[in-house]
Amino acid sequence: MKRFERLFAPRAIAVVGVSEDAVRPGSPTVHTLLRYGYDGRVYPVNPRYAEFAGLRCYPSIAAIDGDIDVAVLGVPSRSVLPVIEECAAKRVGYAVVLSGGFRESGPEGAALQERMVATARATGMRIVGPNCLGLANVQNNVYAAFGSITRTPKLANGPVSLVTQSGGFGYSVALACAAEAIGFRNVIATGNEADIDTIELIAGLLEDEHTGIILAYIEGLPDGRRVLEAGRRALAVGKPILVWKGGVTEQGARAAASHTANMTGRYDLYKALFKQTGIVEITEIHEAVDYIKGFQSRKFPAGQRVAVMGGSGGSAIVFADAAESSGLSLSSFTERTKKQLSEVVPAIGSVENPVDFTAGYIQGGNADKFEIAVRSVLEDPGIDGVCVNFATIGGASCLAGAEVLSGLAARTHKPLVVFLSVPPEETGGALPVFREARIPVLPSPGRAARVLAMLAGYARTRNSATRTAPAGEPIRMPDVLARDRRGRALSEVESKTLLARAGIAVTNERVVRSAEEARLDGLAVPLVVKIASPDIAHKTEIGGIKLGIRTQAELRAAVSEVLENARARAPAAQIEGVLVGEMVTEGFELIAGALNDAVFGPVVIVGAGGIYAEALRDTTCRIAPFDEQTGHEMLNELRCSTILRGARGKPPLDIDALARALGALSRLAWDNRETIAEIDINPLFARREGATAADALIVLRA
Amino acid sequence: MKRFERLFAPRAIAVVGVSEDAVRPGSPTVHTLLRYGYDGRVYPVNPRYAEFAGLRCYPSIAAIDGDIDVAVLGVPSRSVLPVIEECAAKRVGYAVVLSGGFRESGPEGAALQERMVATARATGMRIVGPNCLGLANVQNNVYAAFGSITRTPKLANGPVSLVTQSGGFGYSVALACAAEAIGFRNVIATGNEADIDTIELIAGLLEDEHTGIILAYIEGLPDGRRVLEAGRRALAVGKPILVWKGGVTEQGARAAASHTANMTGRYDLYKALFKQTGIVEITEIHEAVDYIKGFQSRKFPAGQRVAVMGGSGGSAIVFADAAESSGLSLSSFTERTKKQLSEVVPAIGSVENPVDFTAGYIQGGNADKFEIAVRSVLEDPGIDGVCVNFATIGGASCLAGAEVLSGLAARTHKPLVVFLSVPPEETGGALPVFREARIPVLPSPGRAARVLAMLAGYARTRNSATRTAPAGEPIRMPDVLARDRRGRALSEVESKTLLARAGIAVTNERVVRSAEEARLDGLAVPLVVKIASPDIAHKTEIGGIKLGIRTQAELRAAVSEVLENARARAPAAQIEGVLVGEMVTEGFELIAGALNDAVFGPVVIVGAGGIYAEALRDTTCRIAPFDEQTGHEMLNELRCSTILRGARGKPPLDIDALARALGALSRLAWDNRETIAEIDINPLFARREGATAADALIVLRA
Repeated sequence: MKRFERLFAPRAIAVVGVSEDAVRPGSPTVHTLLRYGYDGRVYPVNPRYAEFAGLRCYPSIAAIDGDIDVAVLGVPSRSVLPVIEECAAKRVGYAVVLSGGFRESGPEGAALQERMVATARATGMRIVGPNCLGLANVQNNVYAAFGSITRTPKLANGPVSLVTQSGGFGYSVALACAAEAIGFRNVIATGNEADIDTIELIAGLLEDEHTGIILAYIEGLPDGRRVLEAGRRALAVGKPILVWKGGVTEQGARAAASHTANMTGRYDLYKALFKQTGIVEITEIHEAVDYIKGFQSRKFPAGQRVAVMGGSGGSAIVFADAAESSGLSLSSFTERTKKQLSEVVPAIGSVENPVDFTAGYIQGGNADKFEIAVRSVLEDPGIDGVCVNFATIGGASCLAGAEVLSGLAARTHKPLVVFLSVPPEETGGALPVFREARIPVLPSPGRAARVLAMLAGYARTRNSATRTAPAGEPIRMPDVLARDRRGRALSEVESKTLLARAGIAVTNERVVRSAEEARLDGLAVPLVVKIASPDIAHKTEIGGIKLGIRTQAELRAAVSEVLENARARAPAAQIEGVLVGEMVTEGFELIAGALNDAVFGPVVIVGAGGIYAEALRDTTCRIAPFDEQTGHEMLNELRCSTILRGARGKPPLDIDALARALGALSRLAWDNRETIAEIDINPLFARREGATAADALIVLRA
Repeated sequence: MKRFERLFAPRAIAVVGVSEDAVRPGSPTVHTLLRYGYDGRVYPVNPRYAEFAGLRCYPSIAAIDGDIDVAVLGVPSRSVLPVIEECAAKRVGYAVVLSGGFRESGPEGAALQERMVATARATGMRIVGPNCLGLANVQNNVYAAFGSITRTPKLANGPVSLVTQSGGFGYSVALACAAEAIGFRNVIATGNEADIDTIELIAGLLEDEHTGIILAYIEGLPDGRRVLEAGRRALAVGKPILVWKGGVTEQGARAAASHTANMTGRYDLYKALFKQTGIVEITEIHEAVDYIKGFQSRKFPAGQRVAVMGGSGGSAIVFADAAESSGLSLSSFTERTKKQLSEVVPAIGSVENPVDFTAGYIQGGNADKFEIAVRSVLEDPGIDGVCVNFATIGGASCLAGAEVLSGLAARTHKPLVVFLSVPPEETGGALPVFREARIPVLPSPGRAARVLAMLAGYARTRNSATRTAPAGEPIRMPDVLARDRRGRALSEVESKTLLARAGIAVTNERVVRSAEEARLDGLAVPLVVKIASPDIAHKTEIGGIKLGIRTQAELRAAVSEVLENARARAPAAQIEGVLVGEMVTEGFELIAGALNDAVFGPVVIVGAGGIYAEALRDTTCRIAPFDEQTGHEMLNELRCSTILRGARGKPPLDIDALARALGALSRLAWDNRETIAEIDINPLFARREGATAADALIVLRA
C-alpha cells in the first residue's frame, strides 16, 4: 500500500488516554495490540501512570523519544485539541480519534472538530474519526480501536477490507462474514470523517496489494464524482467493491439524519452510480457473505446461461425460479453433453438441464461418474456457470463429492457453486476442501443462483466499463442566454434552441409577434399555438395554449386569443410572442430531464410520461456524461420499454433516436454544469422515426 | 390428532424390504426406530432372514400375528402390488410406499400406481407416497422413512409440522430450522401423492393438538378450493401455515414439469390464495426460520407502527429502511414516553424513534435503566412492536440484556424482537434466555423488521378473514343464453345484459336492426356504433365500429356502413343488429375479468387498461366469490391506484363503484361456475361517478 502506509503498517503507536478503568477507549487498544502480538512499538500515554499493561507509560506525546506513526486518542473531547497540537508538533503521521463529542453533538462540537482538523492540516497530519470505533489491520495485528473491533474472536486474515460509517453495524457484517470463514485485511470505522473519508480510504485500499475485495457500509458521501472515479478504477484493477447504502428510504434517511451529518443523498442516483461502476449493492448481511464467497472464486460467467445438477428435484426447481428472477437462463445442453451424461446418469434421472442424477448419486463409490457428469456440463459451450445441489448430502459422501468438484474447479474458468444444507459438523470435512478450491458453498439454491447472477452482472459491467461519453466539442450555452439569468428559467424557445444545438430534435415551430404574422406555410397541420414567455410556466392555466389548428383562419384566431389571454391574466409577464408549431400526433410520451445534483453533479433521468408519469414512477437515471449505449440501457430498464419496442401489434418506435437524445442531453448537462441547474423535456415523444422534444424548460443555477 | 392418528402414533409398524444391504430403504427405517427408542412394535419383513437388527424377521405381512398400523414398503416397484394386497387383506391402516418406479417413471408406472391405489381403497387402507422419503413423528420417535429424514442429528421436538412435495429440499429447510433450535412435530415427504395429498395432510395437521405451525413446500396442488378452505380454517384456529411454492417462474415450472406430474398452476392465483387465507409465502430458507421464530412468539402487532432501539446508529437506519420497504412505520412517541426515556437515556443519545441509548448501554450495571427504556417504548400506545438492536453486544452484557427483555416479554402482548450479530458462543448464554422468553433473535435488522411486518400482516388478515362474499340470491344466467352455446362466446349485447343483471353498470345503449330504426332520442352524444354479432370478436378489423357520432344523419350513415361492412367482410356471421351506445369520454380505462381456472375455479382479475395493459402487467386477482372490501384491496394493490385516487390534481374517480363492480363480477363468475368459462370487461371505465363496462365478452364452458 502506498497511501496510508503509515496508518495501516505503523512501526510505532501511541495510545493517549489509557486507564485502569477498562471503559476508557484507549485501554482495549493497548491490550489488543499486546494480545495479538503487534510487533511495533506501543507507547501508552497518561501522566498518572508510570507503567501500563507492563509497558512504560508516558506523561505526554512530547515525552516519547521515537517517531510515532499513529496516535490513538481516547481522551474526553475537551482534551483532544491539546493532544492533537502535541501530535502535530511531533510530526505524528495519523491521529485516530476515538473520542465522541464533536460534530455529532452540536455546534460547539462541530467548531471543536474544525479546529482539530485545521491544526492537523497545518503539519500534514491526517485524522481518522473522531467519534469512531477506529481501525484494525488484521494481518499486521494493528489495532487502533476499541469496542467490538477489539473483542474476541479475532478476525481471520483474508482479502476483504471493510470501510464503515457505522462501527457497530459494519462490524456486525464482518462477524457474519467471519462465521463463514471469510478473512479480512483492514477494518476501518470512519466516524465523523472530519478529515479522511470513506472515498479516500476506498481509493487507498485499491492500491493495497493485500486487499482484494472492498466492503463498505455508507450512509452518505460528500462527492459522488469521486466515488464514480474510484468505482471505475476498482473495476479496471479487478477489485470488486460491495456497498451497503443505509438510509435509502424516507424513514431510513430520517433516522440517518438524526444520527449523522452525512447527507444520505438520493437513492436513485446511488443506484445509477452502482450500475455505472459495477459496485455491487448489498441490502442484507447474508448477501455480503454470499457475494464475497462468489468473488473469492475469481471466476465469472461469460454470460447468463447456467446449469443446475443434483439429486433433489425440489432444489433444482427452486434454483430455476431464483435463476429466472435474477436474469439467468437454464439453457439446453448440446447433444454431445447429453450423450456424455446419459452414459453416467441413471436412466430414471434426467440428462436435460436441470440434470437429475438421482438421489444417492454423490458418494465415494460413484466419484468417477459424478466427475464425468459435472465435467460434461462444465465443458458445454452453451453453459457459463454451474450449480451442484448437494442439499442434504453429508458425511463421507459429501467429502467425496467435494474432492471431485475441487479437482474440476482447478481446471475450469467457469464458476462452480454448491448448495449444501447439512450442518457444518455433518459435512465430513468437506467445507475446507470447498474453501481451498474456492468453490462457493451456499445454504440455499436461491442464494446460489443469485451469486451466479451477481458475478455475471459484474463481468458484464466490467466488459463495458471503458465506455464513457464520446469525445467531441463541448456544447456550450451562448453567453447571451446565461447573462443576468442565474436562478431563472429560459423560455421554451430558448430552451429548445439549446436542445437543438445539442442535437436533440425539437418540434418544427416559429415565433410570431401577432396574428397578422402567423402563416401556415411550411408547417404540417395540425398545429399548436402557445404563448411564449419566460415568465409563464403553466401556460394551460391562463389559456395560453390552443391545439389542433388546421386552417389559416383558425391560426390567426388562436394567436390573437392566446395573446389576449396572456395580457389579461398575466399582465406582468414579458411576452416574447406566440409559438406556432407542428403538433406531434403519433408516438409515445416520455419525460426526460437533467438535474445538477449536490452530490453527483449532472444526472439524466428518463421515464414514462403522460398520465402515468407520477403514478408509475417508471423512471431511471444515470450520471452524466454518457454514451448512446448507456441511453439504450436506460430505456431497456423502463417498464414502458415494451411499448417502445411495439406493444400490441403496434410498430416499434425509434429507440436509437431516443438513446442518442439521452446521450446528447447528458453531454449538454455536463458541458454546462456551471450554468445549468435543470433541464426538463416534457414530453419527449418517441416516434416511429426520431424522437422529438415537444416542450422544454431549462433552469439556470442560482 | 383425530385424522391420521394411526399414521402418526402407530402402535405397530411393519417394514417390508429390510436388507443387510443398507442401501435398501427399509433398513434405515428399522435402525432409526430402534436408535430413537420407538416404543411400539416393529416387524421387519423379509423371507430371507429369520432375524434383522436383533428383531424377529417375518417372511411376509400375513405371517405377522398382531395388528399393524403402518406398513413401510421399501421393496422394488414390481413387488409393491403383492405387498399392498397383503396389507389390505391384513387391514393395515396406512402403507408408506418409499419405492420409486411409479407415475414419475412413465405410463407403465402410472398404471401400477393406479392399481395400487384401487387395491388399497377397496379396504379403506390409505397410502403415503409412493416415491417418497416417508415421514416421521419426532415426538413419538416414529420413523417410516429413509434418506435424510433418518440421518443424524435427530430433529428436536417442537410445534412445527412439515409437509413437503420434495423430500430433499423440504428436509433442507427443516435442517436450517433445526440449526436455529426450532423443533418439529411431524415431517412428511409426500412423493407422488397417489392417495394422501398435501392438502389432506395440512387439514389433518390442523386437528393435531401438538402441531402449532405448518410449513409446506409445494410444487402443485390438484384443488385450490380445498387449500382455500384449509387456509381459512387454519386462520380461524390460529395455526399459521407457511408455504414455499416451487415452480413459480417459467423456468421453474418447466423444471417442475420434468420432475413431477403435479401441475404447478398459475403463480398469481397462488398469490391470491395466500392473501385471502393469511398463508405466509416464503421464498428463501432463512425466511422459514425467521417467520417460525416470529410465530413462536405468539404475539402480533395490532398495527404497522414499530419502534427500534439500540446503541448502533447504522443498525437503526438499516432497520428503518427495511421497515419502510415492508410497510411498517416508525411512528413518534408520546411526550410521556420521551420524558420517561430522557430520564434513563444519556443526553448524547436520542429519545426519539429510533431510540439511541448510546453504545455500551446494554450491560449488567445498567439493567434498571435499560428495563425502563424498553418498557417505556413498549407501553407507548402508538407503538405496536419493538426491535432492540443488540448488534455486537456479547458476553455477560448480552446475557444481562436478555434477562431484562425476558422479564418484559412476560408482561406485554406486543411483539419484541432482537437483532444480535455475535456468534452463538460469544453470547454469554443469552440465547436460551431469549428462547425461553419466546423473543425472536434475528441476525440482521432487516430480517427483524420483516418478521414484525409479516406478523402484522398475518394479524390483519386474521382480523378480516371472516369476510367472504355477501349473502344474496345467486345471479343465474338465463337458460336461453347457455343453451346450445357451450364453448362459445355470448354476444356483446348478451354479455352486457348479464353484467347489468349482476349489478355492473354498462354503457347506455340499444340494438337497432337498420339505419331507419336508429334514433338519437334518450342517448347522450357522442355515440358509438358497433356491429352486434356473436360471431365477430374483432369488430375494428372488419370496419364494424364508428366513433364520435353526434347527429341523427351521422348515426344513420354509421349504422348503414357497419352493416354493409359486416355483410361484405364477414358474410357468414349471424348479425343481431347494430349496437348504438353512448361513448364514455371521461375516466380511466381498466380491464376486469373472470376466469374459471382448472385448479382454483372462478377467479377475478383487474388491471390497468389501455396502451399500458400489456406493458405494465399492472394486474391483481382474487379467488371468487368475495366482497366489496376485497375489491378495494385489489384496487389498492394496482400501481395505477394513484390515478384512481386523483393524480396530478385531477379529481378522484369512483373507487367504491369499482370495488362494488369487482365484488359483483366475482359473484357472477361463482354463481355460474358450471356454465361460464371467462368474462372479459375491456374497458371498464373508472369514472368520477360510477364504473361502466364499455365492452364485454362472456365465453361459456365447453
